[in-house]
Amino acid sequence: MPVDLEKWIVRKKVFWSRIWEDLEIGYLDRDLLPLLIELNLRPYTYTLSSCSGRIILVDSVKPWARKGTNVIFKKHAPITHEELVRVTREPCAEALWLIVSGPIIHASTASLKEAGELLRVARRAGFKHSGVLSMHKVKGIIVEMLTGIKAIHIIKKGEEFITPVSELSKVVAVANELLEDAKEALKRLVNEVRSSRPERLDSFIIRDLQRKQHFSIF
Amino acid sequence: MPVDLEKWIVRKKVFWSRIWEDLEIGYLDRDLLPLLIELNLRPYTYTLSSCSGRIILVDSVKPWARKGTNVIFKKHAPITHEELVRVTREPCAEALWLIVSGPIIHASTASLKEAGELLRVARRAGFKHSGVLSMHKVKGIIVEMLTGIKAIHIIKKGEEFITPVSELSKVVAVANELLEDAKEALKRLVNEVRSSRPERLDSFIIRDLQRKQHFSIF
Repeated sequence: MPVDLEKWIVRKKVFWSRIWEDLEIGYLDRDLLPLLIELNLRPYTYTLSSCSGRIILVDSVKPWARKGTNVIFKKHAPITHEELVRVTREPCAEALWLIVSGPIIHASTASLKEAGELLRVARRAGFKHSGVLSMHKVKGIIVEMLTGIKAIHIIKKGEEFITPVSELSKVVAVANELLEDAKEALKRLVNEVRSSRPERLDSFIIRDLQRKQHFSIF
Repeated sequence: MPVDLEKWIVRKKVFWSRIWEDLEIGYLDRDLLPLLIELNLRPYTYTLSSCSGRIILVDSVKPWARKGTNVIFKKHAPITHEELVRVTREPCAEALWLIVSGPIIHASTASLKEAGELLRVARRAGFKHSGVLSMHKVKGIIVEMLTGIKAIHIIKKGEEFITPVSELSKVVAVANELLEDAKEALKRLVNEVRSSRPERLDSFIIRDLQRKQHFSIF
């Protein structure tokens, strides 16, 4: 099933302009920006919702559940002991989980060849769980770039502490150390994508970056 | 890039017979068997190394590291309090992590159409991180079926307990509960694959199952 390139390019422009709207309203995960630019410079790739790596605290029966999960805290940067202690003092309905996640990047490509190229680049950067999620005529071929970087640690089960308050500073140190690995993986990916640039870059993106005076990135 | 069907079928037969060798030597993760049979009954699919969900204990700096990681304990079934306590009594070089993983299934398909069909089946069963990992002329199109089911809990950092011995029974209860979800996800996947059988099943696999007297599964 080939992708309808004309319609795909319209979508690329929409998603590209959303990045800059999100940046303006403070909604963008800023650590992602260099990678998003680098990927969108490829004529046959655009980026979708992605994450640079983060630490979250959720109150839920199962840490992976969407329904009934209450995200109490979210940060794309190291956390402090005080931040964690503050959350653990709040009442907990189900269980309190601390989750460190590595980067997760979603992109759409206009061809299987380009999807295969992204998967090879991602794998070279250590994103070993990367894959093509789905294929659509208009939405394009959806690629997920994913590492194995993850920690999902239970702190409380209801009101009972499984990780005692006295040990929380150690948990913070471990979580921040793992997050550092996440951010390093992201840098490896930016470097791999940059060193695998196609001969021709997307002229629309280049011109738009020039307008935005981000030209310095070249 | 089309798959070389003749060579692909040779590989299917090799991987199929390996399942039964592994079963004989006790190397096969037995919970997988119904799914492996169901997937291989599809003419354009064969299965590769897979896991039905498990609990492991590893001694390593980072829980996802391959190098320098020492797997101390591994079980595809619920663990007991005694099993966990025994492992925590051993000296720990780096950090002791308890990891619960959901099922992970690898398959090769002979066409993109079949890969797309498997991804849709997997997604219906809740395997939301499923994707095409790579494409080869001979090895086929490699599909990974993956859920978000995971827990990665730190128990010791070197010789210091972060999760105290007094709380280990709670950790065991939580880990076993999560593993139960993993096994349920696997059953959902078997059911989805079964209810999405193609019109024609693989006649070689059917005949071989009859020889093996597994015919009762139909």
